[in-house]
Amino acid sequence: MGGTNPRVVAFGGGHGLAAALGAWRRITTELTAVVTVADDGGSSGRIRREMPVLPPGDLRMALAALAGDSARGQELAALLQHRLGGTGVLAGHPVGNLMLTGLTEMHGGDSTRALDYLGELLGCCGRVLPMADVPLDLVARVETTDPDDPERTRTIRGQVAIAATPGHVSEILVSPPDPPVHPAVLEAIAAADVVSLGPGSWYTSVLPHLLVPRLRAALAATQARVVVVLNLVPQPGETDGFSPEEHLSVLQAHLNGVALHTVIADADSVVDRRGLLSAVRECGAELVLASVAELDGAPRHDPVRLSAALASVVGAR
Amino acid sequence: MGGTNPRVVAFGGGHGLAAALGAWRRITTELTAVVTVADDGGSSGRIRREMPVLPPGDLRMALAALAGDSARGQELAALLQHRLGGTGVLAGHPVGNLMLTGLTEMHGGDSTRALDYLGELLGCCGRVLPMADVPLDLVARVETTDPDDPERTRTIRGQVAIAATPGHVSEILVSPPDPPVHPAVLEAIAAADVVSLGPGSWYTSVLPHLLVPRLRAALAATQARVVVVLNLVPQPGETDGFSPEEHLSVLQAHLNGVALHTVIADADSVVDRRGLLSAVRECGAELVLASVAELDGAPRHDPVRLSAALASVVGAR
Repeated sequence: MGGTNPRVVAFGGGHGLAAALGAWRRITTELTAVVTVADDGGSSGRIRREMPVLPPGDLRMALAALAGDSARGQELAALLQHRLGGTGVLAGHPVGNLMLTGLTEMHGGDSTRALDYLGELLGCCGRVLPMADVPLDLVARVETTDPDDPERTRTIRGQVAIAATPGHVSEILVSPPDPPVHPAVLEAIAAADVVSLGPGSWYTSVLPHLLVPRLRAALAATQARVVVVLNLVPQPGETDGFSPEEHLSVLQAHLNGVALHTVIADADSVVDRRGLLSAVRECGAELVLASVAELDGAPRHDPVRLSAALASVVGAR
Repeated sequence: MGGTNPRVVAFGGGHGLAAALGAWRRITTELTAVVTVADDGGSSGRIRREMPVLPPGDLRMALAALAGDSARGQELAALLQHRLGGTGVLAGHPVGNLMLTGLTEMHGGDSTRALDYLGELLGCCGRVLPMADVPLDLVARVETTDPDDPERTRTIRGQVAIAATPGHVSEILVSPPDPPVHPAVLEAIAAADVVSLGPGSWYTSVLPHLLVPRLRAALAATQARVVVVLNLVPQPGETDGFSPEEHLSVLQAHLNGVALHTVIADADSVVDRRGLLSAVRECGAELVLASVAELDGAPRHDPVRLSAALASVVGAR
């Protein structure tokens, strides 16, 4: 599977995907990020409500995570990530969201062309692609925990609303249900040696990729090794109190024909090793326990340590 | 005066300065644009009201006018100039205004550093500097033409308000009255072989440079040849019905010790050649009549034709 410079496709969104990309870029130059486009909060949500473009926030973060090491690339990445100040309607918008939006408009809505141009300008060591060519909405069935609510479950639409609704998510869908996927994404999956899922917000950055039929079909058909990187801690409002085993079991329920080969978990965060091992085996996968968290104790993956774990997986086959 | 690759400083703002830069870049690589920062309308005005930065619009246009000929430079220039669409609060903002604002914030308010970084990214064939290091307001005394207005003259503050007030401008000032000017601007003026003023909105893009004491002092002290490029047509609401002679006479009233060497006027736009020649001589300058307008009859300077006229002036001394 190409132990040197393997072809890698990393799925995810937000800070979790940025961490995975920070690790993968140390291992390979054949790197494609496939990024969630279901965010409807913050700057991305404001932009989505104003114009018909993909929510740019997660795409922007992936570009910045892959920016070249040159001074120019790093300063441009800092500009992409810089949030406008002041006290008006622009406050809080990362400049890169507005650049990506403008470039997409210039190219008649072609986000991929806009991403490729910005990637070249940043000197990115990899390609950033959207998981779908149209903006998505997440729709969840949530088991409410409000004792005064006469309904036991509610249908909640939108990433922000789902995260803000107290209760456990029992089912999650994307809308539209079968969105178009760019051919470059499907080709990258077909040609990959490894694909990785996670870390990241489980319901909003990791699972959505499995909910898009064309992505799931491509993942079911690929010969690539499928690696899942588990989160270090549960996500407040989304997976409160979820153990790593529960993360895995939710994932397994959505695999739908996609094989799972390797699960990477942080050796220092796992409480019940036996339970986790049994859950991993139930998925037909192998467990890699490694110290992948930041040394300072922050609940984030350290790119260098995560890259060591990923390299061991890549070399293992 | 360095007939080959002369050191040139071009003063102005808006489309007029962009035309002058489009002409100068064909003649020299030692080019500095000194750009008005008194705009309070459109996207620049909205940004000024939100955060304490220089109005970016005229600076952005100058950068785009100097962008390198490479595909990357030209696409980035197109992005800078692209105005966001949609139906919300972002609509109409040129992306470059937001990039310049974000970069300036990142550098703690240092606009010059932001401009130099963007200039390098664009591959600019020249440097863009602001005429002052703080945002300026124009303040005008306007002779009202409203017969029902009991006041004969009114003091109007702000570029937009001045342009919208019917009547003739009798006096114009900047506020604050003695703003700081970046040392790089003063050094460029001192070292210049040629400085040019105009074309452009006379009261809002050309005269303001003469109203800043430190700029006027630098212009009075320089050994450079001072060239004025007259407008092709009067500016609605600002210089309605102004002949080229009247433009010159308003300019002369603000020279205050600055020598004027050459006046370039479009041979095909001038009605009263004798009157113009006499006005030019009154300023102690020589008149260059040349065909510098666009061939299609649009009231704009053609960069190639204007560069031929400027080259003849540069070679003449």
